[in-house]
Amino acid sequence: MLAYDGTEFHGWQRQPGQRTVQGVLEEALSHVLSERVEVAGAGRTDAGVHARGQSASFATSSRLPARAFAPVLDRELPEDVRVIRAEDREEGFHARHDATGRRYAYRLLDREDVLWSRFAWQPGVPVDAPALDRATRALEGRHDCRSFESSGSPSRNLECRIDRARWTRWEGGLRLDVVADHFLYHMVRTLVGTALAASTTSDPAGEMRAVLEARDRARAGVTAPPQGLCLEEVFYGSRGAAE
Amino acid sequence: MLAYDGTEFHGWQRQPGQRTVQGVLEEALSHVLSERVEVAGAGRTDAGVHARGQSASFATSSRLPARAFAPVLDRELPEDVRVIRAEDREEGFHARHDATGRRYAYRLLDREDVLWSRFAWQPGVPVDAPALDRATRALEGRHDCRSFESSGSPSRNLECRIDRARWTRWEGGLRLDVVADHFLYHMVRTLVGTALAASTTSDPAGEMRAVLEARDRARAGVTAPPQGLCLEEVFYGSRGAAE
Repeated sequence: MLAYDGTEFHGWQRQPGQRTVQGVLEEALSHVLSERVEVAGAGRTDAGVHARGQSASFATSSRLPARAFAPVLDRELPEDVRVIRAEDREEGFHARHDATGRRYAYRLLDREDVLWSRFAWQPGVPVDAPALDRATRALEGRHDCRSFESSGSPSRNLECRIDRARWTRWEGGLRLDVVADHFLYHMVRTLVGTALAASTTSDPAGEMRAVLEARDRARAGVTAPPQGLCLEEVFYGSRGAAE
Repeated sequence: MLAYDGTEFHGWQRQPGQRTVQGVLEEALSHVLSERVEVAGAGRTDAGVHARGQSASFATSSRLPARAFAPVLDRELPEDVRVIRAEDREEGFHARHDATGRRYAYRLLDREDVLWSRFAWQPGVPVDAPALDRATRALEGRHDCRSFESSGSPSRNLECRIDRARWTRWEGGLRLDVVADHFLYHMVRTLVGTALAASTTSDPAGEMRAVLEARDRARAGVTAPPQGLCLEEVFYGSRGAAE
């Protein structure tokens, strides 16, 4: 399990000439293992998006046990990526393909705040918490979510099972937790932008359902900025829908 | 009112060749006002300490009204200092001398967390929240607090009226809020280090009282690191002790 402050990264995915989490990890791993490995991440987070519970896997010929391996790798990594723990998995295990769910959090700020501005977004408009919550709860269930997918990285499977999409208060403002089996490109951020717009209407839940049913990205709202988003948890194995 | 992320500052107080909040502010003010002014801050925060509600005052011959002034100054300042609001005060007003109280927060982390590590301290030992709370509550009242003062910057008035010193939970762990009429040098950080040690004894409150009564810095615990500390609020005018 990995955690990172995404501020100084060009996202997860390796790209030539850019500082990315996958790139930094693979480089550190090649030092530790003395072989080149390719790392698969459960969530391919965008530039500026953070993680507290990212999962990543790789195949190695090394016999170093995982427990000894985590602190060694952690020392090789820059300050803004941390290895929380490591474990040995069966051959063929793949952090992304085998994941059965993810939880993302999106944090909003009530007011400008230098303490939290790296990790939250201040939308600059008053926020109606119960209306926001009605808007996102309307998404719970199994739906074609293409209205919330940005172009550029099309998913083959557009149907997502959203187990939870609810807001709670945190010290700086409001926080959305979304749990789903998988997410489309920019889905959480677009969902936040759309819910903010829907929360100002007389029927936030109905508005969200209408966006969903349109199956059209143009019907949804703006994509909220990346710094509010954090990959909190990745699930493996069977899960009930009520989680 | 000012807010700043103290990570990249050498503290509040102007020092030749160092980046300090007072230095950065005075430089920006000299641009905005076309005159040199000296800024007085209510709390002279140390290197790495943050502020969400710092107060600062200065005398100027400018006729620019405060309401127009705040956004102009804010634009002149680097990203990690923000002007929240500004107001005109009577001649002779001094942000530090006229303050009647301050509230500081100290944030602890339950576990290593890249999201909050700039703004909180992970003590690396399990923390007993009720015991910590018993320890710090024992300090509420008017006391000679020299046991919690680091050498180097002696205060003339060693007696502090501590109105509140209690812990609550926040997303990352535990948070102490301390309200007092004034604070001695390193007082909150030393109080946190001492309370952590006291919380592992059978009588946390009695242990804190014994430290207080010793009037001896050597009797107190370690000084907790600066990044967990934040000046949250400065009070002016009369306040009740029960606040």
